[in-house]
Amino acid sequence: MPRCRYTESMFLTRRFKHCPSCGGQIQYQVPADDNRERACCTVCGSIHYENPINVVGTLPVWGDQVLLCRRAIEPRHGLWTLPAGFMELGETTAQGALRETDEEAGAQIELQNLYCVHNVVKVGQVHLFYRARLLSTEFNPGPETLEARLFHEHEIPWDEIAFHTVRETLQRFFEDRRLGRDFSLHSADIG
Amino acid sequence: MPRCRYTESMFLTRRFKHCPSCGGQIQYQVPADDNRERACCTVCGSIHYENPINVVGTLPVWGDQVLLCRRAIEPRHGLWTLPAGFMELGETTAQGALRETDEEAGAQIELQNLYCVHNVVKVGQVHLFYRARLLSTEFNPGPETLEARLFHEHEIPWDEIAFHTVRETLQRFFEDRRLGRDFSLHSADIG
Repeated sequence: MPRCRYTESMFLTRRFKHCPSCGGQIQYQVPADDNRERACCTVCGSIHYENPINVVGTLPVWGDQVLLCRRAIEPRHGLWTLPAGFMELGETTAQGALRETDEEAGAQIELQNLYCVHNVVKVGQVHLFYRARLLSTEFNPGPETLEARLFHEHEIPWDEIAFHTVRETLQRFFEDRRLGRDFSLHSADIG
Repeated sequence: MPRCRYTESMFLTRRFKHCPSCGGQIQYQVPADDNRERACCTVCGSIHYENPINVVGTLPVWGDQVLLCRRAIEPRHGLWTLPAGFMELGETTAQGALRETDEEAGAQIELQNLYCVHNVVKVGQVHLFYRARLLSTEFNPGPETLEARLFHEHEIPWDEIAFHTVRETLQRFFEDRRLGRDFSLHSADIG
């Protein structure tokens, strides 16, 4: 997750003050054909919408081990995460998940099914994790990662996992594996 | 889909000219710790990210019929769609799908599984459709809908479907039903 731009206080910090089109003053009000407050320009009249964004990532697996990355950036510097980050314009969810896995872990993978869709309402995010098969155990972490390594289930540093959605994805994976389930889609709402 | 704000030309139309924080001039450039162009303010230095957004909706089913809505708004006025619209801040994907089904069709439903996740890269959108069980056949369409009605498979107006992702979702549903499959998650990349 490359940047620290959306935090728990995002509902305050991301609010518009000026119109991105004309620079005029923004006033939050309910437009005529709408039912909620929007960023409306008092000069040119344009309306600017704010919507949840997607975080896309992977759960890379090698035998009975999974790949985690230790974060070199805030938030949660030093804690462990699955490779993931903000989905960009011009890519699919799968392409974004592959890109983040390359950028953060330098890991070669084969993407499998979309495994987890987790809503994190309080920060306006949806986290989508794909299962992935590691093609090698050589990793080449980027600048956002201190260390990338494989973990057996009993080695997972549960108290040092960076994000709720990562913990949820890992827990579900080990549970599915233990019960011989087929790793079908898991949805959850987080906090 | 309530508003016509994201069209095929969105990559041009949504680009920032002024900084939403200070109103200063925006210049698109690659920030020091990044690898793609962002909207950077030449005055206050803040960076404004643009990401894909989610459209959430449902495939409401009554026996062997499905519910479609005829659009009262552009784009695709007069064409048929599943109830769907832009996901809002403060809600989950499921809550958004329920809300849109209420707003566009006035239909009472019980939400089932997340059924389709379709990437529409050229407009920077991800469309998520849930299967839903209709609890009654009384509909109360909102102002964005000319008509809401049930269709048997052979009645579907395939040439008058508003969006590729709706057609894809319907085709998959009838195929799954014909083959006795379990309606597990379907992913596709559209156009």
